Amino acid sequence: MPQAGSHHAPQQVDIALGDRSYPILIGAGLLEQASAWDGLPAAASALIVTNNVVGPLYADRLRAALAGRYAAVHTVVLPDGEAHKDWQTLNLVFDALLGHSCDRKTVLFALGGGVVGDMAGFAAASYMRGVPFVQVPTTLLAQVDSSVGGKTAINHPLGKNMIGAFYQPARVLCDLATLQTLPPREFSAGLAEVIKYGPIADMALLDWLEQNLDALVRRDTAALAHAVRRSCEIKAWVVGQDEREAGLRAILNFGHTFGHAIEAGMGYGQWLHGEAVGCGMVMAMHLSRLLGLVDEAFVARVTALIARAGLPVTGPDLAPDRYLELMRVDKKAEGGQIRFVVIEAPGRAGVRAAPDALVREAIAACSG
Amino acid sequence: MPQAGSHHAPQQVDIALGDRSYPILIGAGLLEQASAWDGLPAAASALIVTNNVVGPLYADRLRAALAGRYAAVHTVVLPDGEAHKDWQTLNLVFDALLGHSCDRKTVLFALGGGVVGDMAGFAAASYMRGVPFVQVPTTLLAQVDSSVGGKTAINHPLGKNMIGAFYQPARVLCDLATLQTLPPREFSAGLAEVIKYGPIADMALLDWLEQNLDALVRRDTAALAHAVRRSCEIKAWVVGQDEREAGLRAILNFGHTFGHAIEAGMGYGQWLHGEAVGCGMVMAMHLSRLLGLVDEAFVARVTALIARAGLPVTGPDLAPDRYLELMRVDKKAEGGQIRFVVIEAPGRAGVRAAPDALVREAIAACSG
Repeated sequence: MPQAGSHHAPQQVDIALGDRSYPILIGAGLLEQASAWDGLPAAASALIVTNNVVGPLYADRLRAALAGRYAAVHTVVLPDGEAHKDWQTLNLVFDALLGHSCDRKTVLFALGGGVVGDMAGFAAASYMRGVPFVQVPTTLLAQVDSSVGGKTAINHPLGKNMIGAFYQPARVLCDLATLQTLPPREFSAGLAEVIKYGPIADMALLDWLEQNLDALVRRDTAALAHAVRRSCEIKAWVVGQDEREAGLRAILNFGHTFGHAIEAGMGYGQWLHGEAVGCGMVMAMHLSRLLGLVDEAFVARVTALIARAGLPVTGPDLAPDRYLELMRVDKKAEGGQIRFVVIEAPGRAGVRAAPDALVREAIAACSG
Repeated sequence: MPQAGSHHAPQQVDIALGDRSYPILIGAGLLEQASAWDGLPAAASALIVTNNVVGPLYADRLRAALAGRYAAVHTVVLPDGEAHKDWQTLNLVFDALLGHSCDRKTVLFALGGGVVGDMAGFAAASYMRGVPFVQVPTTLLAQVDSSVGGKTAINHPLGKNMIGAFYQPARVLCDLATLQTLPPREFSAGLAEVIKYGPIADMALLDWLEQNLDALVRRDTAALAHAVRRSCEIKAWVVGQDEREAGLRAILNFGHTFGHAIEAGMGYGQWLHGEAVGCGMVMAMHLSRLLGLVDEAFVARVTALIARAGLPVTGPDLAPDRYLELMRVDKKAEGGQIRFVVIEAPGRAGVRAAPDALVREAIAACSG
């Protein structure tokens, strides 16, 4: 069984998108493994985009690994946190790119969690109308979800992820060893996105999580490898069919409509994204039950797993009308109609409208 | 011969880009012609993006033409000018979109010149990761060049058009009647981009311009229709082969490397883009001559046409070293190497590096 820091051949999951296809490499210690960086686009320079928490831990190692491949490897350090996922912070990346005279071949490396990946990705999509970028996710949430699939964005004061691009990375490199330094609260937040794949797509994963959650929580490398690989496989399958979220891809937002309302309503950064999604999934399970799609036992089963992962299963002190107001400006809303991802049956999700009364009842079912 | 304001069937030029193909419609009075707006994507709302100069002239007419097609037609008015092609101004568009609860189907209409088109286009590319947009260019420069081909961007203090996207409109509608209200200086600036197509691609157009420049300058509708249509045809041919500027498309930047240096060196908005390109083309002609590609007579011929169009043919008071410094951060530069669009032979352009000494000499040849 590979241990953190050991060098084994990485596992690989492929995202099949024609000429925008790319591999996800998964393994412990990959960051320092020279072969993991073979075959990237050639360029005179690279820019590592990281934050003030992850940078001190891993930026030097990444820089060392890339030093032989680019004549100049620059680094820009952003302030950590969802509260900084804004234009002002994004502009630090453009300032660095232009300050170092980076050109249209310069490769960006996003070293950090979902916020760094979203911002570095949008910067790469926009700098000179597009330069290559590589995702090097260092959080569980980013490894199993946000680094894969090409969604990039920043927040606007009136809504989360409102300004961005679909822009695929050239590679995703998930070094499982980096998960060992993740604070417990962030690790739990990442588990929300792993658990998500069960009810929407894979009951076998749900079973596996019920059996292996303790091993995951103590960050056993083999358990991490399975959870990351299986999550990426499901995401790859969905994204490969619907890159720009015309239909199927929306199921990956299970729990996110309620979750985004919690994040926005409480102020970005108060609840971690994964925490809000965890609680949002419980609300979406109740909504599915109230729509007659799943039974109480299944709601209880998924809720119990979310609670075991250390995630909140009761909502914050936010009025149901405030949820509705916030959800009407969600990107999935159309003509003011909120569209919810619901569980149609265990292991299968769909997108539906729902009467306001049922939405209020689902929120109430999760009040503390 | 169609006159301004008369309603004739528009001429059409198609941009062939697979599932991103779209038509350019050209004619006098199109803005108010109901059939010109048929077949656009359906949506609950539309947002007209315009500026404080063009808006008062045409926004009401466009709003009236669209009123039957969208339940809500909103307008956002930006401050006019290249100096406002920045993030702060772009954010006014996002504020309007979110303030009006616009969704991911909302259609943006860019009503104005190149700056409005670039900003509305980048806003459309980025809002909720992409909504449809329509170009309604009201300047000659925008009708013959910037509205066609999907380049969108804003400026950064360290460089022009540094932050943007390749994002194709759903349609381009060139109403030739709007050119009648264009100030003479702006009309001349637009002629620079028309003249450009001659030396790089079409000697017949160069001949035609020499014969018909006076009719163009007095804004004869038939002359305008020919100049706009032929320019769009050439641009369509180039963009259809190289959407993302991997090669051929770079020839459309003839005069722009020098021109961007003039714009940046003098401060954005001091020289109009077309004025800087006009003068930049003269410098690029001299560089082509110094590289042994064209003779003095051809340089003189193109220079005379540029001067007849009312454009500057001598450069501003800017040191050659300052040009070189500014050009090294141009998007076409790679690894600090400046790449110039030169005329390989009359009617054919290419991209080359050039010794600094020759570049200085080309600049000196255009000193006042």
